[in-house]
Amino acid sequence: MSAAYNTTPELLPEPTLRRLPWYLAYVSLLHSRGVEYVSSTQIAREINVDASQIAKDLSFLNIKGKTRIGYEVENLKSELEYFLGFSEKHNAVMLGVGSLGRALIQDSGLSRYGLNIVAGFDIDPTVVGTSINDVPVFDIAELDSRCPELGAEIGVVAVPIEAAQEAADCLVAAGIKALWNFTPFRIRVAADIVIQNTSIYSHLAVMYNRLGSRSFLDR
Amino acid sequence: MSAAYNTTPELLPEPTLRRLPWYLAYVSLLHSRGVEYVSSTQIAREINVDASQIAKDLSFLNIKGKTRIGYEVENLKSELEYFLGFSEKHNAVMLGVGSLGRALIQDSGLSRYGLNIVAGFDIDPTVVGTSINDVPVFDIAELDSRCPELGAEIGVVAVPIEAAQEAADCLVAAGIKALWNFTPFRIRVAADIVIQNTSIYSHLAVMYNRLGSRSFLDR
Repeated sequence: MSAAYNTTPELLPEPTLRRLPWYLAYVSLLHSRGVEYVSSTQIAREINVDASQIAKDLSFLNIKGKTRIGYEVENLKSELEYFLGFSEKHNAVMLGVGSLGRALIQDSGLSRYGLNIVAGFDIDPTVVGTSINDVPVFDIAELDSRCPELGAEIGVVAVPIEAAQEAADCLVAAGIKALWNFTPFRIRVAADIVIQNTSIYSHLAVMYNRLGSRSFLDR
Repeated sequence: MSAAYNTTPELLPEPTLRRLPWYLAYVSLLHSRGVEYVSSTQIAREINVDASQIAKDLSFLNIKGKTRIGYEVENLKSELEYFLGFSEKHNAVMLGVGSLGRALIQDSGLSRYGLNIVAGFDIDPTVVGTSINDVPVFDIAELDSRCPELGAEIGVVAVPIEAAQEAADCLVAAGIKALWNFTPFRIRVAADIVIQNTSIYSHLAVMYNRLGSRSFLDR
């Protein structure tokens, strides 16, 4: 274990955790181009974040840049992947195998970023018992009994809005420690449960507004 | 046209635009349960946002609550959908029909929130010429010629990191006015182009860290 790390994992500021994957994306691009070194100034220029902020964010990692040369690209890439948890497997179950849940199971990108969806759960008898990309779909009634053997810590919530809270409660009761909520519903959970809201549809509202949709002027 | 609206669409604060869909989700739930009225205090209790903030956010809408009764649920629901642009069709093209692009095309949720994906574009000869859920996939070389006839204002970017900037440049050159970027790459565009970043994988990093993954302690 490196002396740079504490005995308990550090709770990083969320803005830092959201910026680090940007750096990783840029560094991966450089790596694919065969670039060997990159400075924080260079990253700053490319992705429009202050160089001092970047240096600060990267100071959480077990990596040091060299004066005038910067960071080793390959090393920075693997340190970022490691630090962000992308190079490790995190077992997850998908609650709701409708359109979005099915799409997420089929997206191989998630596994590249460490999310290993091991099973889906649904109430629809036409999907229960089937498999999607080798991921079996079980009846939601089996959540309690199957979760321990599946070794899943993460529950992805992709159910209709009206079922979101109940789905979350079931997952927590089955021992799930973190919820990735894809519904726009504000799920309430106990303080010791991690919750991450990714309401992709809400982002559409921002885009539509910025696009200056004139619809509401023409009524 | 209602007097409540300006002649140009108001540029709403992004936090407001991100909260409004939460209210819509809750109000939709109440609507499905047959509830007729809801107060901002009640919404506040459910979704953990200050009642005064909610009242302020809702003041942008063309709707008034009644003293002691609150807002009409059905009316608030349709006003929110209308205001957020969800009840209108916005034509979009998907750039990159790999795993994520294909998944997004297959997600019927997007069309319920007003996003109408009319075509996909890719460079892979095995997907060009095929259709996904009746959405045709064209060669990326045809972007310029096809965009005007497709009537698309929005380009969804779901290409590999190393192709993200080039994909964005092609979309803008073809007349696209807004980019919905699903890659973690920080795309640079001219100031008049709307960009919305939805890097779902970045959210995983926050969740992994909060879960207190002990991996980096065990090296």
